[in-house]
Amino acid sequence: MPLYIKSVENLINEFRKLPAIGPKSARRIVYYLLKLPPGHIENFARSLTEMKEKVRFCIHCRNLSEDETCHICRDQSRDRTKICIVEEVGDIILIEKTGQYQGLYHVLGGLLSPIENIGPDELRIPKLIERVKENSATEVIIALNPTVEGDSTAMYIKKQLTSRGVIITMLASGLPVGGDLEYADEITIGRALSDRRQI
Amino acid sequence: MPLYIKSVENLINEFRKLPAIGPKSARRIVYYLLKLPPGHIENFARSLTEMKEKVRFCIHCRNLSEDETCHICRDQSRDRTKICIVEEVGDIILIEKTGQYQGLYHVLGGLLSPIENIGPDELRIPKLIERVKENSATEVIIALNPTVEGDSTAMYIKKQLTSRGVIITMLASGLPVGGDLEYADEITIGRALSDRRQI
Repeated sequence: MPLYIKSVENLINEFRKLPAIGPKSARRIVYYLLKLPPGHIENFARSLTEMKEKVRFCIHCRNLSEDETCHICRDQSRDRTKICIVEEVGDIILIEKTGQYQGLYHVLGGLLSPIENIGPDELRIPKLIERVKENSATEVIIALNPTVEGDSTAMYIKKQLTSRGVIITMLASGLPVGGDLEYADEITIGRALSDRRQI
Repeated sequence: MPLYIKSVENLINEFRKLPAIGPKSARRIVYYLLKLPPGHIENFARSLTEMKEKVRFCIHCRNLSEDETCHICRDQSRDRTKICIVEEVGDIILIEKTGQYQGLYHVLGGLLSPIENIGPDELRIPKLIERVKENSATEVIIALNPTVEGDSTAMYIKKQLTSRGVIITMLASGLPVGGDLEYADEITIGRALSDRRQI
């Protein structure tokens, strides 16, 4: 006799495939769902299929969109001469939330990684170069994570674009606002020191 | 302009309602789902609705079941004179996995809590008394968490059943197998000491 009944086991397995959900959380979630009043699970299932049906990727920047182009690329009030490069589509929201950026985006969908066979074509770097040309971009802001992979991807992009007379910038590294020197690692402190600004 | 598109936001909100999933995990999961090849999300949605359609609660013990009674209550090889009381339906699996129990179960669905207005009727304690009588049960094993609520629920059940000539037992408390004295709290060590067994 199996421990779980089939339909419960299927759903536990579906949840286990998701990021950040282990076997215990998956079980806990499914038991929680079982206790919900009718209608809730139907809503959940409907939200899933609806999202899959409606959401596509913007043909220019690969942002999420319900149309061919996303609301940012369509917005004529935005500065089309600035393109901000992010790793994942979710990073766009993080930058939009600051309210300090009015340009366009370009989602790479990953970082250069020879080991994982991710090259410039996989990351839509040719498309980026094309957009820089089309938009007569004056600045490309690289907003990748400050990691080895992020930095080497940034360096590659810089190489591809330097001949095009476009300014290439990166997000500043340093101490997190409200952070504590004591809890920062020495590389971060070193970077904060070398990038110090006059006040 | 909203930061998220509607259908994405709806799904993030559905995931946020689940236990152990915060806003960041919910977002991460939804972006992960968006990157999946077609068919995966449909499977997920189907698993959800299928489970809801198929799964009911056993009329005797409230275990999960695809029929009116669960496979444990139907299994005639099991010892019907033993009833193990658990808080939640998921606890049945935990005990079944030990392979050391061959009796029946009774799911309370919670613990007594005057503050939350959970009384004996909400926990199906009358139904338990009825089953003890019907099955001529000889032992009721209380397998609730060793917490204040668990212990007081156990005491209440004991009071209700003592006049019926049934032995009432509780799971042993003590050090976890493979655990370390140094990491056990003093109450656990105290319990392990008072419940010490001869070897």
